[in-house]
Amino acid sequence: MFKVYGMSTSGNCHKVRMVLEALKLPYAWNEIDTRSGTTRTPEFLAKNPNGKLPLLEIDSGVYLAESNAIIFYLAEGTPLLPNARLERAQVLQWLFFEQYSHEPYIAVARFLRRFHPDPGSQRALTDSKMDGGYRALAVMEQQLERGPFFVGERYTIADIALYAYTHVADEGGFDLNRFLCVRSWLARVEAQPGHVSMR
Amino acid sequence: MFKVYGMSTSGNCHKVRMVLEALKLPYAWNEIDTRSGTTRTPEFLAKNPNGKLPLLEIDSGVYLAESNAIIFYLAEGTPLLPNARLERAQVLQWLFFEQYSHEPYIAVARFLRRFHPDPGSQRALTDSKMDGGYRALAVMEQQLERGPFFVGERYTIADIALYAYTHVADEGGFDLNRFLCVRSWLARVEAQPGHVSMR
Repeated sequence: MFKVYGMSTSGNCHKVRMVLEALKLPYAWNEIDTRSGTTRTPEFLAKNPNGKLPLLEIDSGVYLAESNAIIFYLAEGTPLLPNARLERAQVLQWLFFEQYSHEPYIAVARFLRRFHPDPGSQRALTDSKMDGGYRALAVMEQQLERGPFFVGERYTIADIALYAYTHVADEGGFDLNRFLCVRSWLARVEAQPGHVSMR
Repeated sequence: MFKVYGMSTSGNCHKVRMVLEALKLPYAWNEIDTRSGTTRTPEFLAKNPNGKLPLLEIDSGVYLAESNAIIFYLAEGTPLLPNARLERAQVLQWLFFEQYSHEPYIAVARFLRRFHPDPGSQRALTDSKMDGGYRALAVMEQQLERGPFFVGERYTIADIALYAYTHVADEGGFDLNRFLCVRSWLARVEAQPGHVSMR
């Protein structure tokens, strides 16, 4: 059985839960609050030298880090990941877009506003995340004008990866009102069998 | 024949060249200087709505963005990407590590010091990148204490992705002297058939 080390309020961790639930795979969830310092202990660093969540224990002592590598691993051979070479690469394109052009703005703004002990002190940093976040949302909107999901007209881990922080983007101060295609896509993701929300 | 839109001084673009050269695949290189504004023109945005390099044209009108998605695509079915499910996911783990925990520090510090029109004005931002960059190098060092390459004891696209900005980390102000395993790994990468350096 898979064991997940994760924090339930983290979108990166939530992606892993979404895939496990959608695929009805049995798993144990080991809840960790990163603010407790647990991910910086020698015990945890022996499992993941980069000291980050989520972390998947595949077998005794066999660990896989990085949320998008984990969901790719779990989805291999299932309908959540296309078999065709180009479509697989397109899924990866959106996974890397998510980690480089989306998460550092939308997830970080949400973290600062919702979880920082003194959000007011972080105002300038939070504000500096808005342009990049809106740029990412505009790129998503443009893609979703062409089809119901990000790759190949079907629900894949590209949708799951991008859903994780987009559905709570308002907590980072982002207004999704003008992103009509993004909003109807969020609803389509939420209608998938086995869907779990983060709130 | 593949067509690459790239900037030769960019490590992200250089990854694509390294894979194409290692695999002896024919390609045309379309040199673009991002500072010229070309990647923000309607023509380029029609090819890649995220406005970034590198971009691979696979077929007429079929584009793939994100350096690490491109090199995964090119390496499928070759010795540069393992077939085993766990090893493939481990390669992806390092590709996501590179884009999230390495590039935003080491590549950005290099960009600010070497390519910014007024590097002195960016000193505080450059300095803020040092801790994260050294953390990434320490994680790499720890992994390379265990084996000659990042995954499965052989040369893969995980090595290529991490080589791209590590071999020019000094241009970002990073001192690799104490990272003995990283330094011997750089030499091993440089000894691979078809190796091309960025300088």
